[in-house]
Amino acid sequence: MRKDFGVKPWFYPLPVLIIGTYDENGTPNAMNAAWGGLYDENLVELCLGADRKTTQNILAKKAFTISFADASNVAACDYVGIVSGNNTPDKMQKAGFTVEKSKFVDAPVINELPLVLECKFLKIAEEGNIIGEIVNINADERILDEKGNIDITKLRPISYEPVHHGYYVIGEKVGQAFSDGKSLK
Amino acid sequence: MRKDFGVKPWFYPLPVLIIGTYDENGTPNAMNAAWGGLYDENLVELCLGADRKTTQNILAKKAFTISFADASNVAACDYVGIVSGNNTPDKMQKAGFTVEKSKFVDAPVINELPLVLECKFLKIAEEGNIIGEIVNINADERILDEKGNIDITKLRPISYEPVHHGYYVIGEKVGQAFSDGKSLK
Repeated sequence: MRKDFGVKPWFYPLPVLIIGTYDENGTPNAMNAAWGGLYDENLVELCLGADRKTTQNILAKKAFTISFADASNVAACDYVGIVSGNNTPDKMQKAGFTVEKSKFVDAPVINELPLVLECKFLKIAEEGNIIGEIVNINADERILDEKGNIDITKLRPISYEPVHHGYYVIGEKVGQAFSDGKSLK
Repeated sequence: MRKDFGVKPWFYPLPVLIIGTYDENGTPNAMNAAWGGLYDENLVELCLGADRKTTQNILAKKAFTISFADASNVAACDYVGIVSGNNTPDKMQKAGFTVEKSKFVDAPVINELPLVLECKFLKIAEEGNIIGEIVNINADERILDEKGNIDITKLRPISYEPVHHGYYVIGEKVGQAFSDGKSLK
């Protein structure tokens, strides 16, 4: 038996995106968003809401970063999602986040989060979403394998579960893409 | 130390979306896609490629389904991503997938995959992506908890890891959204 739930914003897995921006005074901010993803091989899309400080910052600076929330920083990543930079000027300090300016765009790289997409604002899509162009991906060496590539088991990204609002870490490897399906050919 | 990687389509976690469609003859098809996500609270976006049979089917039938690949169906979900319905008419049978027509849209629900978004084609976005409207979410009872809600630990959705092309299952709960961050207030 199957059950209908109607219209819900449920998607599995949803990411936990920490969007880093500077305001017009150069003050860094971060927010937490789950609605977004790859829009093309070098493009990302974010559904943030027009009244967000992050949206205002992106439009002012034409840039943002996307760091991926990880299992080591759950409380800080959740905190930036429940407090607005509009009324908490020391939000980043309270989160325990320190930043350096991206070498590529006018947006902050959060030192504590080991993987970041550095993005140039491209445009607002017809429905109001933000479209950005990835200009660089930057990773902390502690999440790299012996060949210098990203190791997801060291990154330990988390996912937002939209029904019960849990955060879940990516777990064990269960298959190999472009390979496991060959057995059915 | 941090390392730059340039422009890459890396995102964590990426979903493994199994897109179900009918062709003009009513033959069901499915493909595997990782580039897509929630576009708004009732909208989804898919970056598929214009030459795909799935894209042709969506434009013909104005409908599609999105099932989430799970740890129980890795080989079948990978298979539909490496074989085209254009030259493998018995693709669904080989995958071991059986379907029923959605009650809401002209697209197939794959019985073996326990969670599906039933979507109406809305339009092609400016860059060529498909925008769809969620008209219903349907779940197999075996992934529901005792209250009749979706239990992610029963669903066991997988994620596509874009660097080494692995599939990883969503693992243990590591936090609670809108809650864990309060400790930093």
